[in-house]
Amino acid sequence: MKKADIIREIKQKRSFLCTGLDTEMGKLPAHLPKNDLGFLRFNQEIVAATSPFSVSYKINTAFYEQYGSEGWQWMEETLSYLPPETFKIADAKRGDIGNTSGMYAKAFFDRMSFDAITVSPYMGEDSLRPFLEFPDKTIICLALTSNPGHHDFQLMHDTEGIALYERVLERVSKWGNTDNLMFVAGGTHTDILRKLRALVPEHFLLVPGIGAQGGSLSEVAAHTATQEIGLLVNSSRGIIYAGSNEDYAEKAAEAAGALASEMSGLVAQYMV
Amino acid sequence: MKKADIIREIKQKRSFLCTGLDTEMGKLPAHLPKNDLGFLRFNQEIVAATSPFSVSYKINTAFYEQYGSEGWQWMEETLSYLPPETFKIADAKRGDIGNTSGMYAKAFFDRMSFDAITVSPYMGEDSLRPFLEFPDKTIICLALTSNPGHHDFQLMHDTEGIALYERVLERVSKWGNTDNLMFVAGGTHTDILRKLRALVPEHFLLVPGIGAQGGSLSEVAAHTATQEIGLLVNSSRGIIYAGSNEDYAEKAAEAAGALASEMSGLVAQYMV
Repeated sequence: MKKADIIREIKQKRSFLCTGLDTEMGKLPAHLPKNDLGFLRFNQEIVAATSPFSVSYKINTAFYEQYGSEGWQWMEETLSYLPPETFKIADAKRGDIGNTSGMYAKAFFDRMSFDAITVSPYMGEDSLRPFLEFPDKTIICLALTSNPGHHDFQLMHDTEGIALYERVLERVSKWGNTDNLMFVAGGTHTDILRKLRALVPEHFLLVPGIGAQGGSLSEVAAHTATQEIGLLVNSSRGIIYAGSNEDYAEKAAEAAGALASEMSGLVAQYMV
Repeated sequence: MKKADIIREIKQKRSFLCTGLDTEMGKLPAHLPKNDLGFLRFNQEIVAATSPFSVSYKINTAFYEQYGSEGWQWMEETLSYLPPETFKIADAKRGDIGNTSGMYAKAFFDRMSFDAITVSPYMGEDSLRPFLEFPDKTIICLALTSNPGHHDFQLMHDTEGIALYERVLERVSKWGNTDNLMFVAGGTHTDILRKLRALVPEHFLLVPGIGAQGGSLSEVAAHTATQEIGLLVNSSRGIIYAGSNEDYAEKAAEAAGALASEMSGLVAQYMV
Protein backbone atom coordinates (compact mmCIF):
# COMPACT_ATOMS: atom_id res chain seq x y z
CA MET A 1 0.00 0.00 0.00
CA LYS A 2 1.36 3.40 -0.99
CA LYS A 3 0.68 6.90 0.26
CA ALA A 4 -1.69 7.54 -2.66
CA ASP A 5 -3.85 4.57 -1.57
CA ILE A 6 -4.17 5.98 1.94
CA ILE A 7 -5.02 9.44 0.60
CA ARG A 8 -7.71 7.95 -1.65
CA GLU A 9 -9.22 6.18 1.33
CA ILE A 10 -9.15 9.37 3.45
CA LYS A 11 -11.00 11.22 0.68
CA GLN A 12 -13.51 8.41 0.35
CA LYS A 13 -14.32 8.07 4.05
CA ARG A 14 -13.66 11.74 4.91
CA SER A 15 -11.78 10.42 7.91
CA PHE A 16 -8.18 9.85 8.95
CA LEU A 17 -9.04 7.62 11.86
CA CYS A 18 -6.88 4.68 12.89
CA THR A 19 -8.74 2.38 15.26
CA GLY A 20 -6.50 0.57 17.72
CA LEU A 21 -7.50 -2.98 18.55
CA ASP A 22 -6.04 -2.99 22.08
CA THR A 23 -8.19 -5.89 23.11
CA GLU A 24 -7.97 -7.37 26.61
CA MET A 25 -9.78 -10.43 27.87
CA GLY A 26 -10.64 -8.74 31.16
CA LYS A 27 -12.36 -5.85 29.41
CA LEU A 28 -14.68 -7.84 27.14
CA PRO A 29 -18.39 -7.12 27.59
CA ALA A 30 -19.88 -9.34 30.28
CA HIS A 31 -21.95 -11.46 27.89
CA LEU A 32 -18.96 -12.59 25.82
CA PRO A 33 -17.05 -15.71 26.90
CA LYS A 34 -13.58 -14.96 28.27
CA ASN A 35 -11.80 -17.20 25.77
CA ASP A 36 -10.55 -17.23 22.20
CA LEU A 37 -14.09 -17.21 20.85
CA GLY A 38 -15.11 -14.18 22.91
CA PHE A 39 -11.88 -12.32 22.12
CA LEU A 40 -12.17 -12.90 18.37
CA ARG A 41 -15.91 -12.28 18.24
CA PHE A 42 -15.25 -8.93 19.92
CA ASN A 43 -12.56 -7.96 17.42
CA GLN A 44 -14.67 -9.06 14.47
CA GLU A 45 -17.71 -7.07 15.62
CA ILE A 46 -15.64 -4.01 16.46
CA VAL A 47 -14.02 -4.04 13.02
CA ALA A 48 -17.36 -4.49 11.25
CA ALA A 49 -18.87 -1.63 13.25
CA THR A 50 -15.98 0.81 12.84
CA SER A 51 -14.84 0.15 9.27
CA PRO A 52 -17.09 2.81 7.70
CA PHE A 53 -15.14 5.37 9.76
CA SER A 54 -11.62 3.90 9.92
CA VAL A 55 -9.05 4.18 7.15
CA SER A 56 -6.56 2.26 9.25
CA TYR A 57 -6.35 -0.32 12.04
CA LYS A 58 -3.55 -0.74 14.53
CA ILE A 59 -2.81 -3.95 16.37
CA ASN A 60 -0.52 -3.44 19.36
CA THR A 61 1.45 -6.68 19.63
CA ALA A 62 1.82 -6.41 23.43
CA PHE A 63 -1.91 -6.92 23.94
CA TYR A 64 -1.72 -10.19 22.01
CA GLU A 65 1.64 -11.41 23.28
CA GLN A 66 0.38 -11.31 26.86
CA TYR A 67 -1.64 -14.39 25.86
CA GLY A 68 1.43 -16.17 24.45
CA SER A 69 1.42 -18.16 21.22
CA GLU A 70 -2.36 -18.34 21.39
CA GLY A 71 -2.42 -14.54 21.41
CA TRP A 72 -0.28 -14.59 18.29
CA GLN A 73 -2.87 -16.82 16.65
CA TRP A 74 -5.55 -14.29 17.58
CA MET A 75 -3.45 -11.51 16.06
CA GLU A 76 -3.12 -13.49 12.82
CA GLU A 77 -6.84 -14.22 12.83
CA THR A 78 -7.80 -10.62 13.63
CA LEU A 79 -5.74 -9.42 10.67
CA SER A 80 -8.06 -11.41 8.40
CA TYR A 81 -11.04 -9.36 9.63
CA LEU A 82 -9.59 -6.05 8.43
CA PRO A 83 -11.02 -4.72 5.16
CA PRO A 84 -8.43 -4.90 2.35
CA GLU A 85 -8.59 -1.16 1.66
CA THR A 86 -7.57 -0.23 5.23
CA PHE A 87 -3.97 0.46 6.23
CA LYS A 88 -2.97 -2.30 8.65
CA ILE A 89 -0.40 -1.33 11.27
CA ALA A 90 1.51 -3.66 13.58
CA ASP A 91 2.34 -1.48 16.58
CA ALA A 92 5.33 -3.57 17.55
CA LYS A 93 8.12 -1.02 18.13
CA ARG A 94 10.72 -3.48 16.90
CA GLY A 95 14.34 -2.82 15.89
CA ASP A 96 17.51 -4.92 16.06
CA ILE A 97 20.75 -5.47 14.15
CA GLY A 98 20.26 -5.81 10.39
CA ASN A 99 19.73 -9.53 9.84
CA THR A 100 17.48 -9.74 12.90
CA SER A 101 15.33 -6.79 11.80
CA GLY A 102 14.98 -8.65 8.50
CA MET A 103 13.30 -11.48 10.39
CA TYR A 104 10.87 -9.10 12.07
CA ALA A 105 10.09 -7.67 8.63
CA LYS A 106 9.48 -11.20 7.37
CA ALA A 107 7.21 -11.93 10.36
CA PHE A 108 4.98 -8.90 9.95
CA PHE A 109 5.12 -8.22 6.20
CA ASP A 110 5.51 -11.67 4.66
CA ARG A 111 4.00 -14.21 7.01
CA MET A 112 1.34 -11.77 8.18
CA SER A 113 -0.05 -9.17 5.79
CA PHE A 114 0.49 -5.98 7.77
CA ASP A 115 1.07 -2.88 5.63
CA ALA A 116 3.20 -1.17 8.25
CA ILE A 117 5.13 -1.68 11.47
CA THR A 118 6.21 0.77 14.15
CA VAL A 119 9.97 0.71 14.80
CA SER A 120 12.37 2.21 17.33
CA PRO A 121 15.28 4.24 15.90
CA TYR A 122 17.75 3.66 18.77
CA MET A 123 19.92 1.15 16.89
CA GLY A 124 20.25 3.30 13.77
CA GLU A 125 20.18 2.84 10.02
CA ASP A 126 20.99 -0.85 9.59
CA SER A 127 18.25 -1.69 12.12
CA LEU A 128 15.58 -0.01 9.92
CA ARG A 129 16.94 -0.76 6.45
CA PRO A 130 15.59 -4.34 6.13
CA PHE A 131 12.02 -3.13 6.75
CA LEU A 132 12.41 -0.45 4.06
CA GLU A 133 13.44 -3.02 1.50
CA PHE A 134 9.98 -4.59 1.41
CA PRO A 135 8.07 -3.13 -1.57
CA ASP A 136 4.75 -1.44 -0.78
CA LYS A 137 5.34 -1.72 2.98
CA THR A 138 5.81 1.16 5.40
CA ILE A 139 7.76 1.70 8.59
CA ILE A 140 6.47 4.12 11.19
CA CYS A 141 9.45 5.32 13.19
CA LEU A 142 9.15 6.57 16.76
CA ALA A 143 10.10 10.23 16.89
CA LEU A 144 8.32 12.13 19.67
CA THR A 145 6.10 9.84 21.73
CA SER A 146 3.06 10.81 23.79
CA ASN A 147 4.12 9.29 27.12
CA PRO A 148 5.76 11.11 30.06
CA GLY A 149 9.09 9.36 29.35
CA HIS A 150 9.54 11.29 26.07
CA HIS A 151 11.39 13.81 28.26
CA ASP A 152 14.14 11.42 29.25
CA PHE A 153 15.96 11.04 25.93
CA GLN A 154 13.89 12.33 23.00
CA LEU A 155 14.27 15.93 24.13
CA MET A 156 18.01 15.70 24.78
CA HIS A 157 19.68 18.46 22.75
CA ASP A 158 22.95 17.94 20.90
CA THR A 159 25.84 20.37 20.60
CA GLU A 160 24.04 22.19 17.78
CA GLY A 161 20.89 22.61 19.87
CA ILE A 162 18.96 19.96 17.95
CA ALA A 163 16.79 17.54 19.97
CA LEU A 164 17.16 13.78 19.52
CA TYR A 165 13.65 13.47 18.07
CA GLU A 166 14.56 16.13 15.49
CA ARG A 167 17.76 14.26 14.57
CA VAL A 168 15.65 11.13 14.17
CA LEU A 169 13.28 12.92 11.77
CA GLU A 170 16.15 14.48 9.86
CA ARG A 171 18.23 11.32 9.47
CA VAL A 172 15.59 8.63 9.16
CA SER A 173 13.71 10.68 6.54
CA LYS A 174 16.80 10.33 4.33
CA TRP A 175 16.74 6.53 4.60
CA GLY A 176 13.24 6.16 3.19
CA ASN A 177 10.72 8.15 1.21
CA THR A 178 7.22 9.46 1.79
CA ASP A 179 5.75 6.19 0.54
CA ASN A 180 7.60 3.80 2.83
CA LEU A 181 8.17 5.93 5.90
CA MET A 182 5.98 7.66 8.48
CA PHE A 183 6.70 8.94 11.97
CA VAL A 184 5.02 8.66 15.36
CA ALA A 185 4.23 12.10 16.77
CA GLY A 186 2.38 12.25 20.08
CA GLY A 187 -0.84 14.27 20.01
CA THR A 188 -0.10 15.62 23.49
CA HIS A 189 2.69 17.85 22.15
CA THR A 190 0.70 20.59 20.45
CA ASP A 191 3.45 23.04 21.39
CA ILE A 192 6.07 21.10 19.43
CA LEU A 193 4.05 19.64 16.57
CA ARG A 194 4.42 22.62 14.22
CA LYS A 195 8.21 22.46 14.50
CA LEU A 196 8.10 18.72 13.99
CA ARG A 197 5.92 19.02 10.88
CA ALA A 198 8.34 21.56 9.38
CA LEU A 199 11.08 18.91 9.46
CA VAL A 200 9.01 16.31 7.58
CA PRO A 201 6.53 18.34 5.54
CA GLU A 202 5.40 15.47 3.31
CA HIS A 203 5.50 12.39 5.51
CA PHE A 204 2.41 10.97 7.13
CA LEU A 205 2.37 11.14 10.92
CA LEU A 206 0.77 8.52 13.14
CA VAL A 207 -0.67 10.43 16.09
CA PRO A 208 -1.51 8.67 19.35
CA GLY A 209 -2.58 10.44 22.52
CA ILE A 210 -5.86 11.98 21.35
CA GLY A 211 -8.72 11.47 23.81
CA ALA A 212 -7.70 9.39 26.85
CA GLN A 213 -4.20 10.92 26.92
CA GLY A 214 -5.54 14.47 26.51
CA GLY A 215 -4.56 15.63 23.01
CA SER A 216 -6.99 17.72 20.95
CA LEU A 217 -7.81 16.69 17.39
CA SER A 218 -8.39 20.19 16.04
CA GLU A 219 -5.18 21.48 17.61
CA VAL A 220 -3.18 18.59 16.20
CA ALA A 221 -4.65 19.27 12.75
CA ALA A 222 -3.98 23.01 13.03
CA HIS A 223 -0.29 22.29 13.60
CA THR A 224 0.31 19.33 11.30
CA ALA A 225 -2.39 18.84 8.64
CA THR A 226 -1.12 19.08 5.07
CA GLN A 227 -2.98 19.34 1.78
CA GLU A 228 -3.03 15.53 1.81
CA ILE A 229 -4.02 15.61 5.50
CA GLY A 230 -0.82 13.70 6.21
CA LEU A 231 -2.16 12.29 9.46
CA LEU A 232 -3.48 9.07 10.85
CA VAL A 233 -4.93 9.76 14.28
CA ASN A 234 -5.27 6.76 16.54
CA SER A 235 -7.94 6.04 19.09
CA SER A 236 -8.10 2.70 20.87
CA ARG A 237 -9.83 2.45 24.26
CA GLY A 238 -12.10 5.43 23.51
CA ILE A 239 -13.63 3.45 20.66
CA ILE A 240 -13.45 -0.23 21.47
CA TYR A 241 -14.56 0.17 25.09
CA ALA A 242 -17.12 2.92 24.44
CA GLY A 243 -19.77 0.41 25.52
CA SER A 244 -19.55 -2.55 27.87
CA ASN A 245 -22.90 -4.24 27.26
CA GLU A 246 -24.48 -6.17 24.42
CA ASP A 247 -24.60 -3.01 22.33
CA TYR A 248 -20.80 -2.59 22.53
CA ALA A 249 -20.39 -2.67 18.74
CA GLU A 250 -23.00 0.04 18.24
CA LYS A 251 -21.33 2.16 20.89
CA ALA A 252 -17.96 1.65 19.20
CA ALA A 253 -19.50 2.73 15.88
CA GLU A 254 -20.91 5.84 17.57
CA ALA A 255 -17.54 6.73 19.10
CA ALA A 256 -15.67 6.14 15.83
CA GLY A 257 -18.41 8.02 13.96
CA ALA A 258 -18.12 11.01 16.28
CA LEU A 259 -14.37 11.22 15.67
CA ALA A 260 -14.86 10.74 11.93
CA SER A 261 -17.45 13.48 11.92
CA GLU A 262 -14.99 15.89 13.51
CA MET A 263 -12.36 14.71 11.03
CA SER A 264 -14.71 15.27 8.13
CA GLY A 265 -14.72 18.98 8.93
CA LEU A 266 -10.93 19.01 9.09
CA VAL A 267 -10.67 17.12 5.80
CA ALA A 268 -12.88 19.80 4.21
CA GLN A 269 -10.76 22.51 5.78
CA TYR A 270 -7.28 21.27 4.96
CA MET A 271 -7.38 18.72 2.16
CA VAL A 272 -7.03 19.86 -1.41
CA MET B 1 17.01 -14.83 39.72
CA LYS B 2 19.31 -12.28 41.35
CA LYS B 3 22.84 -11.16 40.61
CA ALA B 4 24.18 -13.46 43.35
CA ASP B 5 22.65 -16.48 41.59
CA ILE B 6 24.39 -15.59 38.34
CA ILE B 7 27.70 -15.04 40.11
CA ARG B 8 27.41 -18.42 41.82
CA GLU B 9 26.80 -20.06 38.46
CA ILE B 10 29.79 -18.27 36.90
CA LYS B 11 32.02 -19.53 39.72
CA GLN B 12 30.63 -23.04 39.37
CA LYS B 13 31.06 -23.34 35.60
CA ARG B 14 34.07 -21.00 35.42
CA SER B 15 32.36 -19.43 32.44
CA PHE B 16 30.30 -16.33 31.66
CA LEU B 17 29.00 -17.64 28.37
CA CYS B 18 25.52 -16.82 27.12
CA THR B 19 24.57 -19.11 24.23
CA GLY B 20 22.19 -17.52 21.74
CA LEU B 21 19.58 -19.84 20.27
CA ASP B 22 19.26 -17.98 16.94
CA THR B 23 17.75 -21.01 15.27
CA GLU B 24 16.68 -20.88 11.62
CA MET B 25 14.91 -23.64 9.73
CA GLY B 26 17.12 -23.13 6.67
CA LYS B 27 20.30 -23.68 8.68
CA LEU B 28 19.36 -26.94 10.37
CA PRO B 29 21.73 -29.86 9.68
CA ALA B 30 20.70 -31.72 6.53
CA HIS B 31 19.53 -34.86 8.35
CA LEU B 32 16.97 -33.02 10.50
CA PRO B 33 13.44 -32.54 9.13
CA LYS B 34 12.65 -28.92 8.26
CA ASN B 35 9.62 -28.70 10.51
CA ASP B 36 8.69 -28.17 14.15
CA LEU B 37 10.19 -31.52 15.13
CA GLY B 38 13.53 -30.76 13.49
CA PHE B 39 13.63 -27.23 14.88
CA LEU B 40 12.88 -28.32 18.44
CA ARG B 41 15.11 -31.39 18.29
CA PHE B 42 17.96 -29.07 17.22
CA ASN B 43 17.35 -26.65 20.12
CA GLN B 44 17.05 -29.47 22.62
CA GLU B 45 20.30 -31.12 21.51
CA ILE B 46 22.15 -27.80 21.38
CA VAL B 47 21.05 -26.94 24.91
CA ALA B 48 22.01 -30.37 26.26
CA ALA B 49 25.43 -30.14 24.59
CA THR B 50 26.23 -26.57 25.67
CA SER B 51 24.78 -26.42 29.17
CA PRO B 52 28.00 -27.50 30.93
CA PHE B 53 29.58 -24.34 29.50
CA SER B 54 26.70 -21.83 29.45
CA VAL B 55 25.52 -19.88 32.47
CA SER B 56 22.88 -18.18 30.34
CA TYR B 57 20.77 -18.68 27.21
CA LYS B 58 19.37 -15.99 24.98
CA ILE B 59 16.36 -16.45 22.73
CA ASN B 60 16.06 -13.73 20.10
CA THR B 61 12.33 -13.38 19.52
CA ALA B 62 12.75 -12.32 15.87
CA PHE B 63 14.04 -15.76 14.91
CA TYR B 64 10.88 -17.33 16.31
CA GLU B 65 8.38 -14.68 15.20
CA GLN B 66 9.41 -15.18 11.57
CA TYR B 67 7.50 -18.48 11.87
CA GLY B 68 4.39 -16.77 13.27
CA SER B 69 2.31 -18.14 16.12
CA GLU B 70 3.89 -21.55 15.54
CA GLY B 71 7.29 -19.93 16.13
CA TRP B 72 5.97 -18.55 19.41
CA GLN B 73 5.02 -22.07 20.40
CA TRP B 74 8.57 -23.19 19.63
CA MET B 75 9.92 -20.36 21.78
CA GLU B 76 7.71 -21.44 24.68
CA GLU B 77 8.75 -25.05 24.19
CA THR B 78 12.45 -24.19 23.89
CA LEU B 79 12.30 -22.32 27.18
CA SER B 80 11.37 -25.59 28.88
CA TYR B 81 14.67 -27.15 27.70
CA LEU B 82 16.81 -24.62 29.54
CA PRO B 83 18.34 -25.82 32.82
CA PRO B 84 16.73 -24.05 35.80
CA GLU B 85 20.04 -22.68 37.06
CA THR B 86 20.74 -20.80 33.81
CA PHE B 87 19.81 -17.14 33.28
CA LYS B 88 17.15 -17.10 30.56
CA ILE B 89 17.09 -13.97 28.39
CA ALA B 90 14.37 -12.94 25.93
CA ASP B 91 16.23 -10.78 23.43
CA ALA B 92 13.10 -8.90 22.42
CA LYS B 93 14.14 -5.22 22.52
CA ARG B 94 10.67 -4.19 23.60
CA GLY B 95 9.52 -0.86 25.04
CA ASP B 96 6.23 1.06 24.85
CA ILE B 97 4.09 3.38 26.97
CA GLY B 98 3.63 2.21 30.55
CA ASN B 99 0.53 0.03 30.47
CA THR B 100 1.68 -1.57 27.20
CA SER B 101 5.14 -2.36 28.54
CA GLY B 102 3.34 -3.99 31.45
CA MET B 103 1.78 -6.42 28.98
CA TYR B 104 5.16 -7.28 27.48
CA ALA B 105 6.43 -7.88 31.00
CA LYS B 106 3.47 -10.16 31.62
CA ALA B 107 4.13 -12.02 28.36
CA PHE B 108 7.81 -12.73 29.02
CA PHE B 109 7.99 -12.89 32.83
CA ASP B 110 4.61 -14.30 33.84
CA ARG B 111 3.27 -16.38 30.97
CA MET B 112 6.75 -17.48 29.97
CA SER B 113 9.45 -17.97 32.55
CA PHE B 114 12.22 -15.77 31.19
CA ASP B 115 14.49 -14.24 33.83
CA ALA B 116 15.30 -11.19 31.73
CA ILE B 117 14.28 -9.21 28.67
CA THR B 118 16.22 -6.75 26.53
CA VAL B 119 14.52 -3.35 26.24
CA SER B 120 15.01 -0.17 24.23
CA PRO B 121 15.34 3.07 26.25
CA TYR B 122 13.99 5.46 23.58
CA MET B 123 10.59 5.99 25.25
CA GLY B 124 12.05 6.72 28.68
CA GLU B 125 11.30 5.86 32.29
CA ASP B 126 7.62 4.89 32.19
CA SER B 127 8.37 2.51 29.32
CA LEU B 128 10.85 0.53 31.47
CA ARG B 129 9.25 0.87 34.89
CA PRO B 130 6.65 -1.95 34.52
CA PHE B 131 9.40 -4.48 33.76
CA LEU B 132 11.34 -3.39 36.84
CA GLU B 133 8.35 -4.00 39.07
CA PHE B 134 8.54 -7.77 38.59
CA PRO B 135 10.40 -9.29 41.54
CA ASP B 136 13.47 -11.38 40.70
CA LYS B 137 13.33 -10.39 37.03
CA THR B 138 15.90 -8.32 35.14
CA ILE B 139 15.80 -5.86 32.29
CA ILE B 140 18.78 -5.52 29.99
CA CYS B 141 18.68 -2.05 28.51
CA LEU B 142 20.28 -1.20 25.16
CA ALA B 143 23.12 1.25 25.72
CA LEU B 144 25.87 0.94 23.11
CA THR B 145 25.04 -1.69 20.50
CA SER B 146 27.49 -3.62 18.34
CA ASN B 147 25.97 -2.83 14.93
CA PRO B 148 27.14 -0.12 12.50
CA GLY B 149 24.00 1.94 13.23
CA HIS B 150 25.19 2.65 16.79
CA HIS B 151 26.80 5.75 15.22
CA ASP B 152 23.51 7.30 14.16
CA PHE B 153 22.02 8.25 17.52
CA GLN B 154 23.82 6.50 20.41
CA LEU B 155 26.96 8.58 19.90
CA MET B 156 25.13 11.89 19.58
CA HIS B 157 26.60 14.28 22.18
CA ASP B 158 24.49 16.64 24.22
CA THR B 159 25.30 20.22 25.19
CA GLU B 160 27.46 18.97 28.07
CA GLY B 161 29.45 16.71 25.76
CA ILE B 162 27.81 13.53 27.05
CA ALA B 163 26.83 10.88 24.48
CA LEU B 164 23.29 9.50 24.36
CA TYR B 165 24.48 6.00 25.41
CA GLU B 166 26.17 7.58 28.45
CA ARG B 167 22.97 9.44 29.37
CA VAL B 168 21.11 6.14 29.06
CA LEU B 169 23.55 4.45 31.47
CA GLU B 170 23.44 7.37 33.87
CA ARG B 171 19.64 7.77 33.97
CA VAL B 172 18.44 4.20 33.58
CA SER B 173 20.85 3.01 36.29
CA LYS B 174 18.93 5.25 38.72
CA TRP B 175 15.62 3.58 37.85
CA GLY B 176 16.75 0.10 38.85
CA ASN B 177 19.46 -1.58 40.84
CA THR B 178 22.25 -4.02 40.15
CA ASP B 179 19.90 -6.94 40.72
CA ASN B 180 17.17 -5.99 38.27
CA LEU B 181 19.11 -4.08 35.65
CA MET B 182 21.88 -4.85 33.16
CA PHE B 183 23.04 -3.10 30.00
CA VAL B 184 23.88 -4.17 26.46
CA ALA B 185 27.42 -3.14 25.55
CA GLY B 186 28.70 -4.19 22.14
CA GLY B 187 31.95 -6.16 22.21
CA THR B 188 33.16 -4.36 19.09
CA HIS B 189 33.76 -1.12 21.02
CA THR B 190 36.90 -1.95 22.93
CA ASP B 191 37.94 1.71 22.66
CA ILE B 192 34.81 2.86 24.54
CA LEU B 193 34.16 -0.02 26.93
CA ARG B 194 36.41 1.23 29.74
CA LYS B 195 34.58 4.55 29.81
CA LEU B 196 31.24 2.74 29.71
CA ARG B 197 32.21 0.48 32.61
CA ALA B 198 33.21 3.47 34.71
CA LEU B 199 29.63 4.75 34.48
CA VAL B 200 28.08 1.48 35.70
CA PRO B 201 30.81 -0.14 37.80
CA GLU B 202 28.57 -2.75 39.42
CA HIS B 203 26.00 -3.66 36.78
CA PHE B 204 26.30 -6.76 34.67
CA LEU B 205 26.83 -6.13 30.97
CA LEU B 206 25.46 -8.34 28.21
CA VAL B 207 28.10 -8.29 25.50
CA PRO B 208 27.23 -9.30 21.93
CA GLY B 209 29.57 -8.97 18.99
CA ILE B 210 32.32 -11.39 20.05
CA GLY B 211 33.41 -13.73 17.27
CA ALA B 212 31.41 -13.26 14.05
CA GLN B 213 31.19 -9.49 14.56
CA GLY B 214 34.89 -9.18 15.41
CA GLY B 215 35.12 -8.39 19.12
CA SER B 216 37.89 -9.94 21.25
CA LEU B 217 37.01 -11.69 24.49
CA SER B 218 40.24 -10.88 26.32
CA GLU B 219 40.09 -7.23 25.29
CA VAL B 220 36.48 -6.94 26.42
CA ALA B 221 37.41 -8.49 29.77
CA ALA B 222 40.44 -6.23 30.15
CA HIS B 223 38.20 -3.18 29.84
CA THR B 224 35.08 -4.31 31.69
CA ALA B 225 35.62 -7.34 33.95
CA THR B 226 34.90 -6.67 37.62
CA GLN B 227 35.65 -8.71 40.73
CA GLU B 228 32.31 -10.43 40.09
CA ILE B 229 33.20 -10.69 36.36
CA GLY B 230 30.09 -8.58 35.70
CA LEU B 231 29.78 -9.86 32.14
CA LEU B 232 27.67 -12.22 30.14
CA VAL B 233 29.27 -12.66 26.74
CA ASN B 234 26.98 -13.91 24.02
CA SER B 235 27.81 -16.19 21.14
CA SER B 236 25.10 -17.51 18.86
CA ARG B 237 25.99 -18.62 15.32
CA GLY B 238 29.58 -19.43 16.31
CA ILE B 239 28.27 -22.11 18.64
CA ILE B 240 24.99 -23.42 17.28
CA TYR B 241 26.21 -23.67 13.68
CA ALA B 242 29.75 -24.83 14.51
CA GLY B 243 28.84 -28.09 12.75
CA SER B 244 26.32 -28.81 10.01
CA ASN B 245 26.29 -32.62 10.02
CA GLU B 246 25.04 -35.32 12.34
CA ASP B 247 27.70 -34.36 14.89
CA TYR B 248 26.34 -30.78 15.14
CA ALA B 249 25.73 -31.05 18.89
CA GLU B 250 29.27 -32.27 19.55
CA LYS B 251 30.64 -29.43 17.44
CA ALA B 252 28.48 -26.95 19.34
CA ALA B 253 29.82 -28.35 22.62
CA GLU B 254 33.37 -28.00 21.32
CA ALA B 255 32.78 -24.38 20.29
CA ALA B 256 31.10 -23.50 23.59
CA GLY B 257 33.83 -25.40 25.44
CA ALA B 258 36.58 -23.46 23.67
CA LEU B 259 34.99 -20.15 24.67
CA ALA B 260 34.41 -21.38 28.24
CA SER B 261 38.02 -22.48 28.44
CA GLU B 262 39.20 -19.00 27.47
CA MET B 263 36.71 -17.58 29.98
CA SER B 264 38.01 -19.88 32.70
CA GLY B 265 41.37 -18.13 32.48
CA LEU B 266 39.69 -14.75 32.71
CA VAL B 267 37.58 -15.87 35.68
CA ALA B 268 40.80 -16.90 37.43
CA GLN B 269 42.40 -13.59 36.53
CA TYR B 270 39.63 -11.18 37.49
CA MET B 271 37.14 -12.81 39.83
CA VAL B 272 37.65 -12.57 43.56
